[in-house]
Amino acid sequence: MAAQVQRMSRLMVKTLRDDPADAETLSHKLLVRAGYVRRNAAGIWSWLPLGKKVLENVSRVVREEMDAIGAQEVLLPAVLPKEPYEATGRWEEYGPELFRLKDRKGADYLLGPTHEEIFTLLVKDQCTSYKDLPVILYQVQSKYRDEARPRSGILRGREFLMKDSYSFDTTDEGLAESYALHREAYIKIFQRLGLDHRIVSAVSGAMGGSASEEFLAPAAAGEDTFVHCTACDYAANTEAVTFVAEPPAAVEHPAVEELDTPDTPTIETLAEHLGVPASATLKNLLVKVDGEIVAVGVPGHREVDLGKLSDHLAPAEVELVTAEDFTGRPDLVRGYVGPQGLGKVRYLADPRIAAGTAWITGANKEGVHARNVVAGRDFEVDEYVDVVVVEDGDPCPKCGTGLKLDRAIEIGHIFQLGRKYADAFQLDVLGQNGKPTRVTMGSYGIGVSRAVAALAEQTADEQGLCWPAEIAPADVHVVAAGKALQTELALDVSAQLAEAGLRVLVDERPGVSPGVKFTDAELIGVPKILVAGRRSAEGIVELKDRRTGEREELPVAEAIARLRG
Amino acid sequence: MAAQVQRMSRLMVKTLRDDPADAETLSHKLLVRAGYVRRNAAGIWSWLPLGKKVLENVSRVVREEMDAIGAQEVLLPAVLPKEPYEATGRWEEYGPELFRLKDRKGADYLLGPTHEEIFTLLVKDQCTSYKDLPVILYQVQSKYRDEARPRSGILRGREFLMKDSYSFDTTDEGLAESYALHREAYIKIFQRLGLDHRIVSAVSGAMGGSASEEFLAPAAAGEDTFVHCTACDYAANTEAVTFVAEPPAAVEHPAVEELDTPDTPTIETLAEHLGVPASATLKNLLVKVDGEIVAVGVPGHREVDLGKLSDHLAPAEVELVTAEDFTGRPDLVRGYVGPQGLGKVRYLADPRIAAGTAWITGANKEGVHARNVVAGRDFEVDEYVDVVVVEDGDPCPKCGTGLKLDRAIEIGHIFQLGRKYADAFQLDVLGQNGKPTRVTMGSYGIGVSRAVAALAEQTADEQGLCWPAEIAPADVHVVAAGKALQTELALDVSAQLAEAGLRVLVDERPGVSPGVKFTDAELIGVPKILVAGRRSAEGIVELKDRRTGEREELPVAEAIARLRG
Repeated sequence: MAAQVQRMSRLMVKTLRDDPADAETLSHKLLVRAGYVRRNAAGIWSWLPLGKKVLENVSRVVREEMDAIGAQEVLLPAVLPKEPYEATGRWEEYGPELFRLKDRKGADYLLGPTHEEIFTLLVKDQCTSYKDLPVILYQVQSKYRDEARPRSGILRGREFLMKDSYSFDTTDEGLAESYALHREAYIKIFQRLGLDHRIVSAVSGAMGGSASEEFLAPAAAGEDTFVHCTACDYAANTEAVTFVAEPPAAVEHPAVEELDTPDTPTIETLAEHLGVPASATLKNLLVKVDGEIVAVGVPGHREVDLGKLSDHLAPAEVELVTAEDFTGRPDLVRGYVGPQGLGKVRYLADPRIAAGTAWITGANKEGVHARNVVAGRDFEVDEYVDVVVVEDGDPCPKCGTGLKLDRAIEIGHIFQLGRKYADAFQLDVLGQNGKPTRVTMGSYGIGVSRAVAALAEQTADEQGLCWPAEIAPADVHVVAAGKALQTELALDVSAQLAEAGLRVLVDERPGVSPGVKFTDAELIGVPKILVAGRRSAEGIVELKDRRTGEREELPVAEAIARLRG
Repeated sequence: MAAQVQRMSRLMVKTLRDDPADAETLSHKLLVRAGYVRRNAAGIWSWLPLGKKVLENVSRVVREEMDAIGAQEVLLPAVLPKEPYEATGRWEEYGPELFRLKDRKGADYLLGPTHEEIFTLLVKDQCTSYKDLPVILYQVQSKYRDEARPRSGILRGREFLMKDSYSFDTTDEGLAESYALHREAYIKIFQRLGLDHRIVSAVSGAMGGSASEEFLAPAAAGEDTFVHCTACDYAANTEAVTFVAEPPAAVEHPAVEELDTPDTPTIETLAEHLGVPASATLKNLLVKVDGEIVAVGVPGHREVDLGKLSDHLAPAEVELVTAEDFTGRPDLVRGYVGPQGLGKVRYLADPRIAAGTAWITGANKEGVHARNVVAGRDFEVDEYVDVVVVEDGDPCPKCGTGLKLDRAIEIGHIFQLGRKYADAFQLDVLGQNGKPTRVTMGSYGIGVSRAVAALAEQTADEQGLCWPAEIAPADVHVVAAGKALQTELALDVSAQLAEAGLRVLVDERPGVSPGVKFTDAELIGVPKILVAGRRSAEGIVELKDRRTGEREELPVAEAIARLRG
């Protein structure tokens, strides 16, 4: 099976020596400089010939592994009618992130950001019996999200290529199995792509732990933060980290004592005034939950993650209190709130505020704090909630070792949706018992174009891109140093390599200096570089490994044999 | 290379016995009934597993032949900024056919109906010298057109898959070559797809004849009408047919004679009143060209094709006259206009109104006509224009034989754009002479999803779809009649066929009657059907050709050998 030889002189690629002015991340800089992608508008990109090949290679790997778990490929439209998204509330919920448009008759449409609704309707139409399930459907398709701040090149685009799949089962066990199939397929896909990745819980234990996991590719350019244990295999999305409180030492604390602390409404001013660490103090944040004031207690040196708090309290709406909320509430002394005097205000607390721990906190009087305020003795916690911002060194919930925070790119997400969408559209099939059975669903995504950026981030070096073999736009980059004899040899070797089934890119550009050709070869990042140079007359070429930089002079036949592997 | 076996019991396909209520065309009915596609909204369709395979097969053939002419695949965005389309005027010109939308900042975007502007800008950015050209770029991508009347299923959709390519050359000869490369590639593509097609001139001789050609697939469901010669190889879009007038016999016509013809303002009333055929009369249509009244003369039995007339007179705007236009114009007697009395009104005429031909026409007096009005003697023609509606039996411009009108589906279009877009964006490259040289372009399209519909139209029969081998969703459809032994044999044969590299669809659905399975196999239209039935115990299967209906009983090994070919 002979492959094609792609000549650089005919390839539409214009390499750049300088980074584009607007580029912040490595992948953005290099993919533009090496002529893989080109920007059309904010977050909207063209894939040029080299980029298209890489994108296609990633898509192929994804398709092969999806097919291997029995998933069936389909292609749904990108322009979708409003009604199904209204039925699930997402037409509104998506807010400005949704691209909305009208047709010539004034009917509302959207550009699909993800297709749960449409797949649910499809299965409702096509499947009538438990015998038709389970079914896994997938597509590789352009998706649309009107990001507020599209950035980092193709890492966060407004039009991007995604593999989305959806599983349909009649039982929870079936869903767990479809989920497990996806998890295994994703591991294989990212391994084949050569993407270093971590699987992290995406939500805390409340939903069952494994109900949602993210595949993260560690990279400095990543927009996601995740924690991982330096000792065991624990890793999690920062929102999903749980804190297991140690039972406090059984200490007899003195009675509560009030302290005169004028002008210390913040933890910083208080800790400085008393000469204690912030961790000795108890911070009480007031929020409104569906309009009702609630207090959240956390150690003074920690921050409340409002996102986590909102998720925990959803569907209730969480807002910060404003000055007005203190009007007519003499029980709430701004800056000097303490749980021991909160009366009927609901009190949520971090697990670190365990029963028996003592704190310095507000005395509910202007300019006064109190010490030796003991949880369980001087105040009760209505509910323990895990809502502090995770920090480097927090204990691993699995082994207790200090956790490490790192940045990563989210490249995949698997999610047990359950019956939310099936309920919205009354998706039932005839069950084995002869009765209608509500279907349960999973939804699974891989950012195909984002995976290309993640790969570039993880594999590039100072010289340029450096693709893993399966994903590279070619197997070998043959460089003709410049003289006629060298070009002849380069083309001859290229033809032989193509004959052997290798994908060859040959740089035979006339009038381009060897230096520029070498620099371009490093920048473009094909894994093997073969140079027909100085010793071409003897039939000796140089073979270079793009990653290791190792180079070796070899007779042509041996170089070809080496490359054929 | 073992291929996969697709089990019908696991395939998401629900066949229907009845045609969908809204389906008019054969392909629409059958593709829905066989579970290949599903409608989401007017002109917006989903491709289900079987349909996706066919669509992918067509795309693959298109890609292979595009690659073979050295075209480079790219992928441009579908959401495009307004500005480039404003620069060429197409933002307005497209009218309601363009899907327009705004992003969260209120900036205008469109969904790409075709990408000339964006490719021009891409090449302007990437190519700087004549050495970078010629270049041919293509993509296979969803395109968007908000059709006024989306119909016929996937034949005329609002979101559809298209291969669009663009060539860039520095010389007219280069453009002609890029055009010829496409023409040859298209012929190969449609031959491989098994699509009966005609190549027709899309515009008349004025632009050079070969500057634009359409590839039409004759089909009753087609929305295009084309003419072809029953004797020679001439074929053309109806708008492109030219009429070559025979020089009239040199007859001495009597002088003009007026005829009293009360109440005969139409050709029908006139011909009846005088007892002459309509073809003996001269019909004079008045139109306004950029506001000025112009008369167009055609034989009384022919109709003026206003589209052709507009194209001919473009960019001038053509409107029909209204009653008001006759006010203050005593020279224009409505219903009784004759060219011999038109004075300064510009007179265009069909070539059939050749010098020396005599006509019955208006005498420019209410209720009066004139006969023996001779072209060139009694009136002058300012310009001959070929604007009558073509009819069955019109003479072939190549050989004179009667033309035949037929319906077809436009599946491809190749077009020498010239410098229109390059001018709009000042696309120059450094020429061989060291001076900036304006680039000349071609634009070429294949309707990929439409080709699937065209193939279905051309190949289906009463039983259902009937795909050519290269395009079919599988190579063999194995049917297990129902008993355990038959199912076992069917699965065993399927495994062997897959091992041999054949794509197998096996119908092993339990509890489905053999009759339903046979009917479904015919409907789905895989070219070969292998049945493990009555004589399974003897190791004898039935092999059937879906197209010819020929069936044969064979030992398993022989059937497999036959299928491996």
